[in-house]
Amino acid sequence: MDILHRVGVESATVDDIYAALTTIDGLAGWWASNTTGDTDIGGVIQFRFTAGGFDMKVTDLRPGQRVRWEVVDGPEEWIGTDVVWDLKQQDDYAIILFQHRGWKEPGEFMHHCSTKWAIYLMSLKQLVETGTGAPDPRDIQISDWH
Amino acid sequence: MDILHRVGVESATVDDIYAALTTIDGLAGWWASNTTGDTDIGGVIQFRFTAGGFDMKVTDLRPGQRVRWEVVDGPEEWIGTDVVWDLKQQDDYAIILFQHRGWKEPGEFMHHCSTKWAIYLMSLKQLVETGTGAPDPRDIQISDWH
Repeated sequence: MDILHRVGVESATVDDIYAALTTIDGLAGWWASNTTGDTDIGGVIQFRFTAGGFDMKVTDLRPGQRVRWEVVDGPEEWIGTDVVWDLKQQDDYAIILFQHRGWKEPGEFMHHCSTKWAIYLMSLKQLVETGTGAPDPRDIQISDWH
Repeated sequence: MDILHRVGVESATVDDIYAALTTIDGLAGWWASNTTGDTDIGGVIQFRFTAGGFDMKVTDLRPGQRVRWEVVDGPEEWIGTDVVWDLKQQDDYAIILFQHRGWKEPGEFMHHCSTKWAIYLMSLKQLVETGTGAPDPRDIQISDWH
C-alpha cells in the first residue's frame, strides 16, 4: 500500500526542488530542522523530529528528475518502505509526484502519515516559493499525534 | 487503491464533526461553498467546485460514528468509489479517519486528490475549531491543478 501526493510549486524549476531534496540545508528548511548525514547516493540521512525520527538511505538520484530513499531506521511500520520523489516541469510549475511505497497495513498510523506528508509537501512548496518553510518543530499540527 | 487520512479536531466532539458532514451548511463550510441536495440516507448531495463537481449518494449514517458516500457522478476516476468517514473521541480530540476507497489506478489525478483531501480535512478542522473553514472557492491552492 502506498501514500501518494501531487504538489505544484509555482515560479520554480525542477532543479529548485531537487536542491531542496538533496542538500541538508534544503531538507532542514521544510521537513526536520534537525537533519544531518550524507545526501549522496548510498549515503544515510538522519531526520530527527520532536518525537522520534527516520534514517533514510539514498538509493536513487537523477538530477531534476528523481530522488529515492529507503527507510533504514525509524518506526517499525516505516522500515523497509521507500520514499520516491518524481519531478517534472509543467510550464511555470515544478510538479512533485510523491510516493511512500510499501506499507504493509492501512492502519491508523498510515492514515496519519499520509496527511502529515501532505502538510510537509506544502511546507516544501512554501520554502521554494517564499524562502521559508515550516519544518519540525515549527510544523503545522494536524491532531493529538502532532 | 485507497486514499487515507487522519486528522484530530481539538476541543471538539464527534457530534460536531458529524454535523459538519451531514448538513448542507456544514459541508458548505469546509468543502464546496456551492453544496445542495439531500443529506439523509439514500439522498444525493451535489458538490460544485470552480472546476467541476461530484454527486454523492449517502450510503451509511451512524450518528457520531460513521458517514459513507458513494460517488454517483463526477470525474470518471471517482465514479463508483466510496468516501468513508469514521469518527472517534480521543480525550479532547475528535478523531477523523478518512478513506476514499476503490481507485482503479494510482495515476497523477489520484496523487492530486490525495493531497487536496488533506487540505480540505484541514479546512474541516479549522471550521470546527474556529468557526471558519476554507471551502472552494476560498480553498488553499496546491498546484497548477488548484
